[in-house]
Amino acid sequence: MTDTPTAAMIVIGDEVLSGRTRDANTQVLAKMLNEAGIDLCEARAIRDDEAEIIATVNALRGRYTYVFTSGGIGPTHDDITAEAVAAAMETPIGIRDDARAILVARYGEGADLTDARLRMARIPDGATLIDNPVSGAPGFRLDNVFVMAGVPQVFAAMLDHVRTMVGTGEVMKDISIPCPYPEGVLGGPLTDVSQAHPNVSIGSYPRLQVGGGWGVTIVARSRDATALAKAAGAIHTMLASLEGSTTTGE
Amino acid sequence: MTDTPTAAMIVIGDEVLSGRTRDANTQVLAKMLNEAGIDLCEARAIRDDEAEIIATVNALRGRYTYVFTSGGIGPTHDDITAEAVAAAMETPIGIRDDARAILVARYGEGADLTDARLRMARIPDGATLIDNPVSGAPGFRLDNVFVMAGVPQVFAAMLDHVRTMVGTGEVMKDISIPCPYPEGVLGGPLTDVSQAHPNVSIGSYPRLQVGGGWGVTIVARSRDATALAKAAGAIHTMLASLEGSTTTGE
Repeated sequence: MTDTPTAAMIVIGDEVLSGRTRDANTQVLAKMLNEAGIDLCEARAIRDDEAEIIATVNALRGRYTYVFTSGGIGPTHDDITAEAVAAAMETPIGIRDDARAILVARYGEGADLTDARLRMARIPDGATLIDNPVSGAPGFRLDNVFVMAGVPQVFAAMLDHVRTMVGTGEVMKDISIPCPYPEGVLGGPLTDVSQAHPNVSIGSYPRLQVGGGWGVTIVARSRDATALAKAAGAIHTMLASLEGSTTTGE
Repeated sequence: MTDTPTAAMIVIGDEVLSGRTRDANTQVLAKMLNEAGIDLCEARAIRDDEAEIIATVNALRGRYTYVFTSGGIGPTHDDITAEAVAAAMETPIGIRDDARAILVARYGEGADLTDARLRMARIPDGATLIDNPVSGAPGFRLDNVFVMAGVPQVFAAMLDHVRTMVGTGEVMKDISIPCPYPEGVLGGPLTDVSQAHPNVSIGSYPRLQVGGGWGVTIVARSRDATALAKAAGAIHTMLASLEGSTTTGE
């Protein structure tokens, strides 16, 4: 289907690449996009580096329908995402009245409205604000790029607004089938099933179980419900034919 | 320091981009590299797509000292990483005796040595095997590209061997300082500290606490221990000067 919207994620933050933090936002975004029928095609984690952000935004925004970023829009000196995205898109950026008003509603006009907090009102010209019901300071959408917070609770809350701003596609349906046989036993017959159902993407996902041994889940995915159902039937038939096979090993 | 080794990670797998799985391997790799003094500069999650794997490997292997991949080296039809990496590096690939012997030791020469399992013995010419003490089937290193399993326990176990195969750099040292003030209060003074200590990378990491309110950790990083200690002292002095400031808000 050529009209399926596509997307890329850019996780911005030294803390992910140093191992200090395990990124949580890509999975939350992936699930939202999956429900909206949008294909997340790649996700990149990059450093808090202006040139790197500019290059990555420009590499991806022309390639995909939507680009999402997380991280780097807070009040401190290491929060450089808003400027970098504006620079990538050659758009002026400054403190904008609508964003400032959101911060004034929360912090007033006095000493609590620090210069650092006002950094969070810097929005590129022409961008649409993304609501932040958790802590006020908004994200923004500029053309097809959505700039969101890195803190997982804020990122997730912003997605509630974002999902109303994106187009949707035919939803990818999936069927998960637990399998008692290891991939080394399953591999050959599953290849045959996969080749016989070219409109269905069939993957097998092994995991090591607590106490030893492999567990495998077969996942079939397709936008075509009829084709998917047929493939699932073929997988069940294939599994029945394996009855009595060894369940040990990889 | 121009001689600091650099690295990139490629997470290969539709399951990460569909939201089914949350990648765990990047953080484990990041911590190992951090201990080895190697800078992880970016991490990309991409689909199980041969052209995508080839393009990504080739985009990154010339740019960084090392490239690591996880995922796609199992026994099933959707495991295409080994072939794709070999294709990217224009190297022939086939079942290799040393890798086959590892599988024979585990599965014997009989019916348990299925064609699917033998797929795990496909190793590019000239590659060095990476030990897999968990389930036998090896990873491999070809030039500066390290190809590892996606299952987190196997990936982590392979890293024990990988860490003996990479060069090391000066280790990045870091100091974490918990901060009672939100970034909106901290931001201005922290910018001053950061500008006064250009050889130290200073970040601040906010998180939402259970029960509400923000917690912030300031992290200072440098390969220069003396510069790092001075910056940490300046951060503590700055925090003392903020005593009595509000601790609420972002």
